[in-house]
Amino acid sequence: MSQPIIGVMGPGEGATEVEKQAAYQLGRLIAEAGWILLTGGRNCGVMDAASRGAKRGGGLTVGILPSNDRHQLSEAIDIPILTGMGSARNNINVLSSQVVVACGMGAGTASEVALAIKAGKPVILLHVSSASQLFFQSLGKERVFVAADEAAAIALIYQILSHPYNPSGH
Amino acid sequence: MSQPIIGVMGPGEGATEVEKQAAYQLGRLIAEAGWILLTGGRNCGVMDAASRGAKRGGGLTVGILPSNDRHQLSEAIDIPILTGMGSARNNINVLSSQVVVACGMGAGTASEVALAIKAGKPVILLHVSSASQLFFQSLGKERVFVAADEAAAIALIYQILSHPYNPSGH
Amino acid sequence: MSQPIIGVMGPGEGATEVEKQAAYQLGRLIAEAGWILLTGGRNCGVMDAASRGAKRGGGLTVGILPSNDRHQLSEAIDIPILTGMGSARNNINVLSSQVVVACGMGAGTASEVALAIKAGKPVILLHVSSASQLFFQSLGKERVFVAADEAAAIALIYQILSHPYNPSGH
Amino acid sequence: MSQPIIGVMGPGEGATEVEKQAAYQLGRLIAEAGWILLTGGRNCGVMDAASRGAKRGGGLTVGILPSNDRHQLSEAIDIPILTGMGSARNNINVLSSQVVVACGMGAGTASEVALAIKAGKPVILLHVSSASQLFFQSLGKERVFVAADEAAAIALIYQILSHPYNPSGH
Repeated sequence: MSQPIIGVMGPGEGATEVEKQAAYQLGRLIAEAGWILLTGGRNCGVMDAASRGAKRGGGLTVGILPSNDRHQLSEAIDIPILTGMGSARNNINVLSSQVVVACGMGAGTASEVALAIKAGKPVILLHVSSASQLFFQSLGKERVFVAADEAAAIALIYQILSHPYNPSGH
Repeated sequence: MSQPIIGVMGPGEGATEVEKQAAYQLGRLIAEAGWILLTGGRNCGVMDAASRGAKRGGGLTVGILPSNDRHQLSEAIDIPILTGMGSARNNINVLSSQVVVACGMGAGTASEVALAIKAGKPVILLHVSSASQLFFQSLGKERVFVAADEAAAIALIYQILSHPYNPSGH
Repeated sequence: MSQPIIGVMGPGEGATEVEKQAAYQLGRLIAEAGWILLTGGRNCGVMDAASRGAKRGGGLTVGILPSNDRHQLSEAIDIPILTGMGSARNNINVLSSQVVVACGMGAGTASEVALAIKAGKPVILLHVSSASQLFFQSLGKERVFVAADEAAAIALIYQILSHPYNPSGH
Repeated sequence: MSQPIIGVMGPGEGATEVEKQAAYQLGRLIAEAGWILLTGGRNCGVMDAASRGAKRGGGLTVGILPSNDRHQLSEAIDIPILTGMGSARNNINVLSSQVVVACGMGAGTASEVALAIKAGKPVILLHVSSASQLFFQSLGKERVFVAADEAAAIALIYQILSHPYNPSGH
């Protein structure tokens, strides 16, 4: 039986310092909780910071890359999955995660949150604008949560994973 | 040299009558303009209505299906592309369209608008809430347009296609 | 109700003159039969030659491209589908075709023939080595046909399409 | 820096006892060598047997599933990647593996060997017919190896991984 897989999505090159620090902290806490971290795998932004945090926390990191080679692979990824399918891989990111955390917002992240809602996955929003919250909560209803900080996001993940309804894709 | 391909995206089973009527009208006008219509190809909602409108207008219709068979294929599709890849096909919808029109909003449509912005494609929003407009315009800036009605959407498409910058994926 | 879609697959840059001439002739005959031609869409080898033949025959051509732009698009493609997913698009090629014709053999073509067999699609082999015939007939049994020339391939397609068993993906 | 990822492909439901025993042994030896095992992830045939062997050997197992849920997931998979894209996921299997081992042959496996050759990945054939060997060696030339047994396959993987040319996708 595999450990829960938690997806952390967010801006790449355009990530802010605040988003990257939150992602690092989030990755560390996810690892310390004993969960596997899944990201987009590249060596920038939220995905890289979350993966480095998870390694700092002693965890395992999976990266689902858009490319077919390792040129942009984050050094903090243990399991690089090379899809060679660009942004279409975003759907794999969300299908493979029991819970999706969006840390910051961009076009790619927005597509992942929307695909997660479409797939019935719980989504946690962190460091996103009120316009983003409003839009995604109207779209995903009670499956979309807003977390005030990284610790609150972790508490929400515990709550979601322990819920009688198994969100793992069964 | 192929004709321009215009993508029309929108809710499936959950589409309202207003959205379906707008989609039908949009499909007819796209066909009458000599453009090829591309949709998600299923026999419901906006994709079906737009395709039926395009056939009424004497046009050609392409449907990019999530399934690997024709069970849910709209009868108004001339060229069914069976992807067998579920919502990951949403990225193909937007990559293959020179302009993406969202007629109504849902989780799948939101993912397509976000993926279109990610890919640098112009997007036209029709019959969406002000929360959706606000969110996607903050995300996609000057590449996201809002149309008051179907005729205005068509006028925007003409304008986009005639622009010196070629939005066809070059 | 859409016209039958016939897929023609074969080597790209590495195609021989014989393969390209056969592909051109095949494309022309497919168009003259009233069928839609589907290929990999690039501007080289069997896919380009078959598409040019189909246009010569007055037909409609669909190209499923591995790229996310039109840089390598054959000029003879009416409907370019940009997948941005590299060789993973090979599965779309075969799922979307009622019959798959392999004209010549290479690694990409071999993957398409294997995926077609996996999906239960009828396959016709043309201009392939006896080692290829032996291998694929042992793999696909009575769903794999060998054609002596283009006219024989067309006769086989007529026969397959008229068969009570509908090979269209139902 | 991640450990090498070795892909083991082969028949699912149709696998023979000999193939499953070889796959189990192969998985165990891969794990004992310190490599990560990657398979198609389902609970049958070569993929299940190899994964169980790798767990027996104390290793880590990744499964790239064709489905979007865990219904057919092998219990021996640590990291299930849910693609929801059917056989199109076969390309991800080979792109993500530094070396691909085919243990037995079927239509899906043949597509993976062909896609591996297309992607320039080294392939090792084990328990395949002489027709398969002949076909794939003519297709992939010096990148296609034949192993007499599991130990020989492992020796070949060591040799390939130590080669100055880095086969990891760079």
